[in-house]
Amino acid sequence: MTTLMSPDELEAALRKVGAERYHNLHPFHHLLHGGKLNKGQVQAWALNRYCYQSIIPQKDAALMARCEDRELRREWLHRITDHDGYGEDLGGIERWLVLTDGLGLDRDYVMSKRGALATSRFATEAYRHFVAEKTLLEAVASSLTELFAPGIHKERISGMLEHYDFIDEKVIAYFKRRLDQAPKDADFALEYVKKNAKTPEQQQQVIAALTFKTDVLWAQLDALYFAYVDPGFIPPGAFRPTGK
Amino acid sequence: MTTLMSPDELEAALRKVGAERYHNLHPFHHLLHGGKLNKGQVQAWALNRYCYQSIIPQKDAALMARCEDRELRREWLHRITDHDGYGEDLGGIERWLVLTDGLGLDRDYVMSKRGALATSRFATEAYRHFVAEKTLLEAVASSLTELFAPGIHKERISGMLEHYDFIDEKVIAYFKRRLDQAPKDADFALEYVKKNAKTPEQQQQVIAALTFKTDVLWAQLDALYFAYVDPGFIPPGAFRPTGK
Repeated sequence: MTTLMSPDELEAALRKVGAERYHNLHPFHHLLHGGKLNKGQVQAWALNRYCYQSIIPQKDAALMARCEDRELRREWLHRITDHDGYGEDLGGIERWLVLTDGLGLDRDYVMSKRGALATSRFATEAYRHFVAEKTLLEAVASSLTELFAPGIHKERISGMLEHYDFIDEKVIAYFKRRLDQAPKDADFALEYVKKNAKTPEQQQQVIAALTFKTDVLWAQLDALYFAYVDPGFIPPGAFRPTGK
Repeated sequence: MTTLMSPDELEAALRKVGAERYHNLHPFHHLLHGGKLNKGQVQAWALNRYCYQSIIPQKDAALMARCEDRELRREWLHRITDHDGYGEDLGGIERWLVLTDGLGLDRDYVMSKRGALATSRFATEAYRHFVAEKTLLEAVASSLTELFAPGIHKERISGMLEHYDFIDEKVIAYFKRRLDQAPKDADFALEYVKKNAKTPEQQQQVIAALTFKTDVLWAQLDALYFAYVDPGFIPPGAFRPTGK
């Protein structure tokens, strides 16, 4: 029923998934970047998003753990060090904790994920399991949301610096670094799937993997919006901003 | 820091988790049982809840797959047949599909989970992975929400029959059957954890496992409320009731 696409048609289909489902379209992001959130809501976003940051090196290790191709492992390795750091570079997770420090959150509390929404944990763990259990091609394809990341990082840097007096250049360092890192990774993964998705079924798997990943990101913002914006029902045990 | 509880103290601690976190407390359930939802919203609930129903035999098989105790496997097996059926009994999942049939939903669409909220999939898959990856004691403990199920099933049967003209005895058969099944299972699991949680650490693991499971149920209702009640933002690709 489905027919084989050319590599460029596959790329176009993948970019269409991003245009329709990437989380820059979510109303929570409009509020975040537009300066419409209060400090407690930005705290909630940062501590929940830590669940996502913290899972990245694990999902990249899960990919390498089932990858028999040494060249691909060599290429993939820097994704782990980008986040965990190596030697003197403390890495992206540390930069994320500088952000949560700057927002006045206790580091142990953030790292324990105790106050995170259950959906943040479930969605990010789903990503780790997806990478561990699906085919290598699908695992690579699920990283392709990075194709769309630079735009959102630029919006976030300018929007948050402009609108929030509790945000400065230091705490926003995470996103600046990702502006350099994400495009290289995305280009590699895009070329990989264009080359290795050789059947209509594999091409559909690649599209489904990217769709899955957009769901992972979107569901986290749904849960944040529900708990901290409207209707504002914070689940039992989750972070409550001061005064709530 | 934590001290050893008596088995009865452990039971009291587990019942406290239920009293504070079981999803009968969620506003979505008040709407559902109180007749405050329209048919499209009840459809959304039933097709999303199918994700949970469908994962139960898999999580029970995951428990048996890592269980070296033949007696426990023999005891546990009927949980699979309760849901999958055996011989002439078609089981609980079939009864759930009778409910979704009765609500006018296409069976293939429901079973594909294509229209389910991503959070419904992530939360239920988190449950399956929890059972597969944690200790056997924690896996058993995560089933303990059944201690609190009979109350919610009774509320649901009477509330839905009374308030919705699209609900009748036939489509609600699932819940009637669970009134008999759930208490036996819950009693067994409760006695098991009371007997086998022998250290303070194990007792805390048991409480954490039940807390995790209440999160699994709660997060699903958060997502339903967000998408279909207030603010009513249906994520890309999810079920849209007729006219939405």
